[in-house]
Amino acid sequence: MVTTTRSPRTRPWRSASALPVRDIPAWQAERDTAARRVPLAKPSPALPWGDYRPKAFEGEVVPFRVTAFREGHDRIGVQLRLFSPSGDESLHRLDPLEDGFDRWEAQVALLEQGIWRFRFESFGDEFATWEHAASLKIAAGVDAPLMREIGAQLFERAGAEKGRPAAERRSLAAAAASLRDAGLDDAAALAIVEDPAIAAFFRHRPVMALATVGDDLELLVERERAGVGAWYEFFPRSEGARRLKDGTVKSGTFRTAAKRLGAVAEMGFDVLYLPPIHPIGRLNRKGPNNTLDAGPGDPGSPWAIGSAEGGHDTVHPDLGTLADFRSFVRAAGREGIEIALDLALQAAPDHPWVAAHPEWFTTLPDGSIAYAENPPKKYQDIYPVNFDNDPVGIREEVLRVVRHWVAQGVRIFRVDNPHTKPLQFWEWLIATINAENPDVVFLAEAFTRPAPLQSLAAAGFQQSYTYFTWRNTKAELEEFLSSLAHETADFLRPNLFVNTPDILTEYLQYGGRAAYRIRAAIAATAAPTYGVYAGYEHYENVARPGSEENIDNEKYEYKLRDWAGAIERGDSLAPFLRRLNEIRRAHPALRQLRNLSIHWSDDDAILVYAKHLDAGLSPDGRSDTIIVVVNTDPHSVRQTMVHLDTRVWDVEPGEAYEVEDLVTGARWTWSDHNYVMLDAFTQPVHILHVKEPA
Amino acid sequence: MVTTTRSPRTRPWRSASALPVRDIPAWQAERDTAARRVPLAKPSPALPWGDYRPKAFEGEVVPFRVTAFREGHDRIGVQLRLFSPSGDESLHRLDPLEDGFDRWEAQVALLEQGIWRFRFESFGDEFATWEHAASLKIAAGVDAPLMREIGAQLFERAGAEKGRPAAERRSLAAAAASLRDAGLDDAAALAIVEDPAIAAFFRHRPVMALATVGDDLELLVERERAGVGAWYEFFPRSEGARRLKDGTVKSGTFRTAAKRLGAVAEMGFDVLYLPPIHPIGRLNRKGPNNTLDAGPGDPGSPWAIGSAEGGHDTVHPDLGTLADFRSFVRAAGREGIEIALDLALQAAPDHPWVAAHPEWFTTLPDGSIAYAENPPKKYQDIYPVNFDNDPVGIREEVLRVVRHWVAQGVRIFRVDNPHTKPLQFWEWLIATINAENPDVVFLAEAFTRPAPLQSLAAAGFQQSYTYFTWRNTKAELEEFLSSLAHETADFLRPNLFVNTPDILTEYLQYGGRAAYRIRAAIAATAAPTYGVYAGYEHYENVARPGSEENIDNEKYEYKLRDWAGAIERGDSLAPFLRRLNEIRRAHPALRQLRNLSIHWSDDDAILVYAKHLDAGLSPDGRSDTIIVVVNTDPHSVRQTMVHLDTRVWDVEPGEAYEVEDLVTGARWTWSDHNYVMLDAFTQPVHILHVKEPA
Repeated sequence: MVTTTRSPRTRPWRSASALPVRDIPAWQAERDTAARRVPLAKPSPALPWGDYRPKAFEGEVVPFRVTAFREGHDRIGVQLRLFSPSGDESLHRLDPLEDGFDRWEAQVALLEQGIWRFRFESFGDEFATWEHAASLKIAAGVDAPLMREIGAQLFERAGAEKGRPAAERRSLAAAAASLRDAGLDDAAALAIVEDPAIAAFFRHRPVMALATVGDDLELLVERERAGVGAWYEFFPRSEGARRLKDGTVKSGTFRTAAKRLGAVAEMGFDVLYLPPIHPIGRLNRKGPNNTLDAGPGDPGSPWAIGSAEGGHDTVHPDLGTLADFRSFVRAAGREGIEIALDLALQAAPDHPWVAAHPEWFTTLPDGSIAYAENPPKKYQDIYPVNFDNDPVGIREEVLRVVRHWVAQGVRIFRVDNPHTKPLQFWEWLIATINAENPDVVFLAEAFTRPAPLQSLAAAGFQQSYTYFTWRNTKAELEEFLSSLAHETADFLRPNLFVNTPDILTEYLQYGGRAAYRIRAAIAATAAPTYGVYAGYEHYENVARPGSEENIDNEKYEYKLRDWAGAIERGDSLAPFLRRLNEIRRAHPALRQLRNLSIHWSDDDAILVYAKHLDAGLSPDGRSDTIIVVVNTDPHSVRQTMVHLDTRVWDVEPGEAYEVEDLVTGARWTWSDHNYVMLDAFTQPVHILHVKEPA
Repeated sequence: MVTTTRSPRTRPWRSASALPVRDIPAWQAERDTAARRVPLAKPSPALPWGDYRPKAFEGEVVPFRVTAFREGHDRIGVQLRLFSPSGDESLHRLDPLEDGFDRWEAQVALLEQGIWRFRFESFGDEFATWEHAASLKIAAGVDAPLMREIGAQLFERAGAEKGRPAAERRSLAAAAASLRDAGLDDAAALAIVEDPAIAAFFRHRPVMALATVGDDLELLVERERAGVGAWYEFFPRSEGARRLKDGTVKSGTFRTAAKRLGAVAEMGFDVLYLPPIHPIGRLNRKGPNNTLDAGPGDPGSPWAIGSAEGGHDTVHPDLGTLADFRSFVRAAGREGIEIALDLALQAAPDHPWVAAHPEWFTTLPDGSIAYAENPPKKYQDIYPVNFDNDPVGIREEVLRVVRHWVAQGVRIFRVDNPHTKPLQFWEWLIATINAENPDVVFLAEAFTRPAPLQSLAAAGFQQSYTYFTWRNTKAELEEFLSSLAHETADFLRPNLFVNTPDILTEYLQYGGRAAYRIRAAIAATAAPTYGVYAGYEHYENVARPGSEENIDNEKYEYKLRDWAGAIERGDSLAPFLRRLNEIRRAHPALRQLRNLSIHWSDDDAILVYAKHLDAGLSPDGRSDTIIVVVNTDPHSVRQTMVHLDTRVWDVEPGEAYEVEDLVTGARWTWSDHNYVMLDAFTQPVHILHVKEPA
């Protein structure tokens, strides 16, 4: 049906509703009002506030929506005009959502990075108006000759339009003649009114009245990794660390850590995030379990950055040299893994910044520099940066640091606590770096209130940590996952980390091994980006008493783990993680953010959701549907009925279809109401693929 | 506390949070970002879409809200700078809503008509930050000397500020000296930190860091009647109509209808709305009950406008002359009643427009003019106007008609079916008329889907009919009334008509007399504007079978009603309506739109809501609180517990207070949980006034 002049191969979009590109016929522009002739309101994608562009990632299916209506009963049509960054122009027809709110939608997959322009166009749909009136009136014997003549004139106008294929023109002329043929009875005329072939001509090239053009809008499309990835986090100093005979530990290095890359790749992860790799302050260094008295063998927290050995632009000597780091990045690349570095803008008291630029910190009336604090507590291993004494100097220094790591091959930064630094600063930094290199991705670790968390995402962060770890019940997850997919997706991309060195939730502490499987399965399937911090495979679930983080935390010490032994003993989650990542790679529906739909079960712990991708929007041209049914109570065996709105994947209610459990390989015939039993201790989750009919 | 230079009498606002007007100290403006230094987002009042101004009415209490936060833990302050149309500048402190979403609010009553400008200003609140840290740290014995010195420096800065009253300066200097006095122990220093008098100095004249100025925004304040009024509707031809000996009816006139004005005023109504008063078409005139064959004595529908006797600028000869109409308007004015005219832009086939301007209608291929229709039905007494053939000509003619009636003293128009005419047209018409005369009020009768209904309100209509008549259950009303008060109040003012000549809901048809009392009580108390169509007093509840409108509808015939007789027999709701309107006049809380809060009962039919007005925002400086408890099931006697969030009216949970039932005069001592019994057949509703403690 698509008739642009570009070859299908070079088209930078996929759409099931594309129209031939045509200019919209000029309607007299009385724009002395804010309202337009056929009103267009609340276009989306859009930000709920501020002057920011909405965003998407390469390959993302974006629902373009607008509120459109007109006075009276006449029918309207709405189309989307899209301009890709490289100048491709396309036109897509919107369909009414039939939700009672006059919302219209066209879904388009965007395949080109950069700033897209788009606008909505609305018009009186002459054919639809006539078809509605003519079919009712001719059937009722009211005004039949008049309705036939109006149709004939409409068909003639349509046939005369430039660019309409000759075959359509001939059909329309013949239909017009038939409508006027007094020898043809009204029943036959009615068949012409309702002829789907003719309706298709008009849907494809609508005859427009009152053609109305909406505002020019923009959408930023970033690279696929901004939206899709399986992240793994490890401390390079732990990978290859060895306990010496004297009981002390010799640090791992980039060289020893590189030996772990193969296993990370084998589990199927795409991104490896490293906590800060810089020299660690010696002044007031923290000991094990965040104690104040570090011993000589204690490595300190990597987030207490900077010592006489260097600051944010330097590699910790224990890890090796800058050349070793570059080798590590290259080795990861060979395994298909990108390295994400930490960007933590704070300094240990012995960071070189402190002596060279005391104005970058806060000096108190007693002449001392202010520590980080949460009154009355003080964190004496860290000075927070003051961004207001010398904002230009700080900007230049951070820009220099980020450019330095970009020059070493880094394209992803995980930003520590961005909500403790000015929002303006991040907006400026990300825009500046992305102007030089649009591939650089920043992940915001903003564990804070919704307003600052969302503002950071809107202001430029490509990804955000979210409240995922604290959303564990069915009811919490239904609301949370739906909100991520439908309310904030125009500006916020979640990275669903299941744990971090800072977060070991009670759910994991007390949920046993089932909890680890449940959370990994949800994270890997509910959003296109998720993450796992090393040790999760080993069900490390002992917290420092009264806290929500691991005891003997890796932040303050080396962790020596027996990865291979745990797998051999069957004590590792790694095979399950590997299977999850395989499923993600095989199923494009799981690599989308906005295509999640919540379904239902009769059990208060059985969560049900689906991810669906239409054939016309899918990279391989085939529809893809995954149904996830998960027992969120890790201490129970549950059975229930599951209720599905199968129309989401184009199956009529009551119709049967085949599903395959992608974890176990089991197959069932399902319908819209299905029995499930989920045993948290053996199989807490079904990840079901809807098989296409043979 | 307020220290503007204007006298309190001339101040065009009321506010409990006013600050002395001061310029905000200049902070270095790095506006190369959309984000501001102390971010400000989602300001309101605001429209959810489009380029329209939000609106309020004179005397309305408007919640000004904004999302504001800053990085880290330091405290912020937010203020609102308001400029009245006449140039009054004022400053109001916002308080955090403590809702977890970083929303801040100041409520201000606006007392001047015209376009107000406003902006939000945010800043680091140096005192609040210090007070928080100092109170915790001094109490914990951490950094006490340092915190005392920081405070002393802050007090000195504050004392040095221009405009601070001498007494405050002295107190601050003394406090600074005490903080520095080594002889004063930390417990005494802590008392200074926590001294409410000092906190009040800083609240009133905050010491600001990073002062940030938000966008300039606008708010249109219209006259009070745009937002507040009790409407009554009657057909003037029925008032004073007489049945002659031959069985035909002699039409009432403006002179006879004027005799009814006293009774309407006595019931307490402010606005009298008249269906169209113009000549009625004779071609295809409708007979009783919308039949197609009008007899010679049938007056026809007033909405079939125009005949040889004239069109939209003419008075129906049966009603009298234009001079009679002017007398009627003046007589109404003497009773404190404004006249609202109907504006129905459509024509009977014999309207003078049809011959003079066939281009204002739609001509079909057979040369005929298109009737109004809902295919396959046709309405042969009405031609709809086509606004697109000669948009300029139509605009000029309608402008002429509206100006004509404005010249006769009309300031309110009830617009018939505005959703069947272009949105652009209304936006232009209302803006044009209001530019000449800002007192003119337009009420939209847009019984249609939410998008066009809300768009008409946003585009300029001062008032809107709503879905009120179809919201009858407790659950429906909770959602509906809350949405009117809180979601759409920035642009849509509801007029809660309980019935119309077109709407007699099943609830009224089958709910008996109780239904009429219930609906009137809710309409009169839940929103500041409501309306009653004549006959409601007589419980006229017989519908044309299968329809939702009165049988023997007044649209097509005269109605001869015995108003006085019904009152004498005790068969009239008029005394109850009068009491409702007295209560509305006595209680300013009922003349506000946005101050409704939903409360709770254990019964699925007992609806509970309150309307509260703070003393500082009230015209008489006294707090006003009304609690409405209503049994929405007109067929039952119900008893239940009612649960109130008494903090809305500044009563602590569990505290006792007195309430008076304003309908019966009964008094009770209430608390946050109270027993009620509501007998639909005798007293279906409590309208309770919370008495101020003696």
